[in-house]
Amino acid sequence: MKLNQRGLLIVISGPSGVGKGTVRRALFEMKNHNLVYSVSMTTRQPRPGEVDGKDYYFVDRETFQKNIENDQFLEYAEFVGNYYGTPKDKVEEALDNGKEVVLEIEVEGALQVREKTKDAVFIFIAPPSKKALYERLSKRGTEDKALIDKRFAKAEKEFDLAYKYDYIVVNDEVNNAADRIMAIIRAEHARTERTINNYKKMLEE
Amino acid sequence: MKLNQRGLLIVISGPSGVGKGTVRRALFEMKNHNLVYSVSMTTRQPRPGEVDGKDYYFVDRETFQKNIENDQFLEYAEFVGNYYGTPKDKVEEALDNGKEVVLEIEVEGALQVREKTKDAVFIFIAPPSKKALYERLSKRGTEDKALIDKRFAKAEKEFDLAYKYDYIVVNDEVNNAADRIMAIIRAEHARTERTINNYKKMLEE
Repeated sequence: MKLNQRGLLIVISGPSGVGKGTVRRALFEMKNHNLVYSVSMTTRQPRPGEVDGKDYYFVDRETFQKNIENDQFLEYAEFVGNYYGTPKDKVEEALDNGKEVVLEIEVEGALQVREKTKDAVFIFIAPPSKKALYERLSKRGTEDKALIDKRFAKAEKEFDLAYKYDYIVVNDEVNNAADRIMAIIRAEHARTERTINNYKKMLEE
Repeated sequence: MKLNQRGLLIVISGPSGVGKGTVRRALFEMKNHNLVYSVSMTTRQPRPGEVDGKDYYFVDRETFQKNIENDQFLEYAEFVGNYYGTPKDKVEEALDNGKEVVLEIEVEGALQVREKTKDAVFIFIAPPSKKALYERLSKRGTEDKALIDKRFAKAEKEFDLAYKYDYIVVNDEVNNAADRIMAIIRAEHARTERTINNYKKMLEE
C-alpha cells in the first residue's frame, strides 16, 4: 500500500557531460513506472520534427517574460539568447494526479527549484571521475578544445554543489544509475514526513 | 558504483502483531542481498534445536549484567524474567565488512537504538488498519481476550511513536513490504550525507 498518493517531483541534475539525458531515458524505459517528463517552455524556434506541447511549449519572448513576472516558472534560464523554463502549473497538475514528474535540468536550475519547493527530491548525477568526464566531453567530437575546457571548468564548480542535493548517484553504468533512481523514488514515498498524515487516517479505517 | 561501502544498520520495528518477523524473513529470501541478521544475546534457556551463536547467544545473568554495565548493548530489555539484547560489537564488525545488519526489534528497543546511533535507518512496520491488527492478534489462537486487549492497548501507544522513524511501511502484503524495504536500503546508500566524502575522493581518481 502506498501511503503517499501524491506524485513526487524528481530533479535529475549534474554537470554537462555526466549523461543526465541518457540516465533519464533509461529510467523511462523501465517497466511499471508512473513517471512523466516535464515539458519545458522555450522561446527558441522549433527544429524540424519538434512538436509543440511534446518536445517544448514554443512561445514568443513577450509571453515568456510575462510568465516570469507572474512567477509561473519553477526555474528558468537564458542560453544563447533564448529562454528555457519549467512551467509550474503543469508540474503541479501532474503531481496532483499521482504522477512522478521528472525534471532533467542544469545545476543552476536545480538550485532555483530547491529554493521554490520544499517537497522535491534532488538527485545529483556524478561521473565516475573527473578524468572520465573530461573524456566524455572530448568525445562529443565537433567541439574545439577551448569549449571543452570551458565546460569542464564549469563542471568543476558544480561538483562542489553536490552537497545541496539529497542523493548522489554515480553514472558508471546507465542501467545501474536508473535502477538506483527508481529505488530512491520508491523509498521517498515511504518517508515518514510524507506518510505520517495518511498513516493516521489509515489506522482508523 | 556504490559510493558508500560501509553497511547500513536497518531497524525493522513496529507493534506486536504487525508481522515484523514475516517481513524480515521475506527480505532475507530475496535475491542478491547483502543482509545479515543480528543475533541477540539472552539469558533464557535454549529451546530444543536452538543453536548458540545462531539463534541466540545464550549467557547467564551475571554475564549479561556485566555487558549492560560495560555499555555493550545497542538495546536490551527484560521480558518475563529474562534479558534480551543486541550486542554492539557484532553489529559494528558486520557493518565494517559492508554487510547490511537487520535488527527486528520491539518499539521500545528501536528507540534505545535511536538514541545510541546516528547512522541507522529506522523503518516502522504498520498494519493496514487498527482493526486488521486486532484481528491478527486474535487469530494467534491460544491467547485469551484479556491478553489480546493488553497487547492491542500497547500497540495503540506505539502507533503514536511512528513519527520517530525514518520510514513507514504498511504490511498489507508481505512481499510488497519487503520490496519497499529493499528499495529503502538501496536509496539510503546514495544519500548525500553518506556519500559526499567518498564522492570527493572518487572524483580525483
